[in-house]
Amino acid sequence: MQRLIWTVVAAFAMAMVLGPIVIPWLKKMKFGKEIYELGPQTHKKKQGTPQMGGIIFAVPALIAALAFSYGDARWDFLLIALVSALGFGLIGFIDDWLKIRRHSAEGLTPKQKLAPQIVLSIGLAVWAYLNPKIGASLTVPFFNVEWNLGWFYIPVMVFVLVGTVNSANLLDGLDGLLGGCGMFDFVAMALICVAMAAANPAEADNLLNVAIFAGAMVGGLLGFLRYNSHPARVFMGDVGSFFIGGALVGMTLVTRLSLLLPVIALAMVMSSVSDLIQFAYFRATHGKRFFKMAPLHHHFELSGMPETRIVAMYYIVTAMLCLVSLLGFVA
Amino acid sequence: MQRLIWTVVAAFAMAMVLGPIVIPWLKKMKFGKEIYELGPQTHKKKQGTPQMGGIIFAVPALIAALAFSYGDARWDFLLIALVSALGFGLIGFIDDWLKIRRHSAEGLTPKQKLAPQIVLSIGLAVWAYLNPKIGASLTVPFFNVEWNLGWFYIPVMVFVLVGTVNSANLLDGLDGLLGGCGMFDFVAMALICVAMAAANPAEADNLLNVAIFAGAMVGGLLGFLRYNSHPARVFMGDVGSFFIGGALVGMTLVTRLSLLLPVIALAMVMSSVSDLIQFAYFRATHGKRFFKMAPLHHHFELSGMPETRIVAMYYIVTAMLCLVSLLGFVA
Repeated sequence: MQRLIWTVVAAFAMAMVLGPIVIPWLKKMKFGKEIYELGPQTHKKKQGTPQMGGIIFAVPALIAALAFSYGDARWDFLLIALVSALGFGLIGFIDDWLKIRRHSAEGLTPKQKLAPQIVLSIGLAVWAYLNPKIGASLTVPFFNVEWNLGWFYIPVMVFVLVGTVNSANLLDGLDGLLGGCGMFDFVAMALICVAMAAANPAEADNLLNVAIFAGAMVGGLLGFLRYNSHPARVFMGDVGSFFIGGALVGMTLVTRLSLLLPVIALAMVMSSVSDLIQFAYFRATHGKRFFKMAPLHHHFELSGMPETRIVAMYYIVTAMLCLVSLLGFVA
Repeated sequence: MQRLIWTVVAAFAMAMVLGPIVIPWLKKMKFGKEIYELGPQTHKKKQGTPQMGGIIFAVPALIAALAFSYGDARWDFLLIALVSALGFGLIGFIDDWLKIRRHSAEGLTPKQKLAPQIVLSIGLAVWAYLNPKIGASLTVPFFNVEWNLGWFYIPVMVFVLVGTVNSANLLDGLDGLLGGCGMFDFVAMALICVAMAAANPAEADNLLNVAIFAGAMVGGLLGFLRYNSHPARVFMGDVGSFFIGGALVGMTLVTRLSLLLPVIALAMVMSSVSDLIQFAYFRATHGKRFFKMAPLHHHFELSGMPETRIVAMYYIVTAMLCLVSLLGFVA
């Protein structure tokens, strides 16, 4: 646990130092955000806030995870989770870069984003499938049952991977929202992995390395939130949201805990689900809207709830869900 | 740990239910806040927000602590901590009540507040002194040394008790500030008490009961923050801030952890210290101010930092300090 705490502290310290270096640089390079035209009107004031701030937590998280992980198991579970975070983060980086170069809210087209995501997801799912310690099973939380999916594991995990990173991306719509909710998710992942390591000494190092990566994300995000909490001085951009989604889903992939995502990452899931409901309802009714705006947090916003109150509500619900998720892993 | 998690969940659920009952009632009874005339001008808009909202977390915390604590040890450590929270909370309640009845920001005079606080503190310090499991020693964190103060223990603890509750009261100046910082403190206290219980089986039930009370505070405060985060719909009032201070210092009293307060409760300590510096500097210089305004969070506010950013900064620093404080208690 001491090692885990030092990981958080180290990543936090690096993010705190990176912020005042990266933010002025992003501003100077004119990496300001072009606000999406279809978003709430009140978001116009956010125009010009630099994006791509995700590197403020992503770089410290990677460094801290590599520096504090247990060497003998570093290139097993941890590597898959790191590749997931880095790979999806890179897709987000390219998207951000194109938006900036084109001075537009349009980066990659949806298809151009989805194709590399699916390719990466297939690679990660096959990699996990072929690892005998991960295999084709998922743990059913709270019931302590292993559910063997056979070869069906691969399409299911591709769906989970692509779904999670895009859900994280959708949740990144209010100051501090995804950063804070993600931080609680990684606190839960760190504690769950420590509990699983205690229960399974044969895989302890592998599981503790995942906990270390989760702790590194917690520290990095806490440091980032110093600059991203309302009123935000920097946005994480797609590089940040895809990195968070990739890190989180990568951790659940290697620990077989993907079924926990609808609990600890309910905020992300609801973002996607509300988007899908909105789209399906709009199609079915030929133009009516189910929510005032999707994803869900914009619906609350247009219902008159102040941005900071929505974010606090998401934090509180996420924190409680993460706490409840621990019930399946502690005595 | 499962019991602790359920305590948090129960207190949270009660607070969530109490909020929508208590807030309209406080409004109807015209328990709105008269904003302190010497505070920042921007706080005028907070006029009329109901206060005394502390009961939203205090009542659930008390009920959950009593319901989930281990019966055989309930009337030992836990009782002292509960009396501390309730006793100081009651002094705050009287202060709030007088403010409301008089429609003024002036409740009890400083002397009228201090006298019962000192009496209560002497009672609590003597009570702890006479308990052989608590005695006249303080644990020096990170060094694992017991420091025996002899009879000097009593005046020192009176200072710590009175100082902490008034520091908590001073910190209660921005939306969500004391509630959130206090919540992190109680998370730390809960985890530390669980770690201490594992290391000391003879006192396990006593220490776990303190953890249960801390968990009850975490749940109650999380629920309260749903209504207190910016823009606040209710303030905790002195009943809330004194209850938090009393609960926190009561827990450190019975666990001998008072020397941990400058770490986990640095935000509170800095509020008092900045007030004292301001006062002393003003006296010494015949009218110059060291801070733009004391306590410290108002200095940041008048320096142009947005309220929500100050609160986020206090949360982040407190969370990191609480995490670091765990280093002294885990392997």
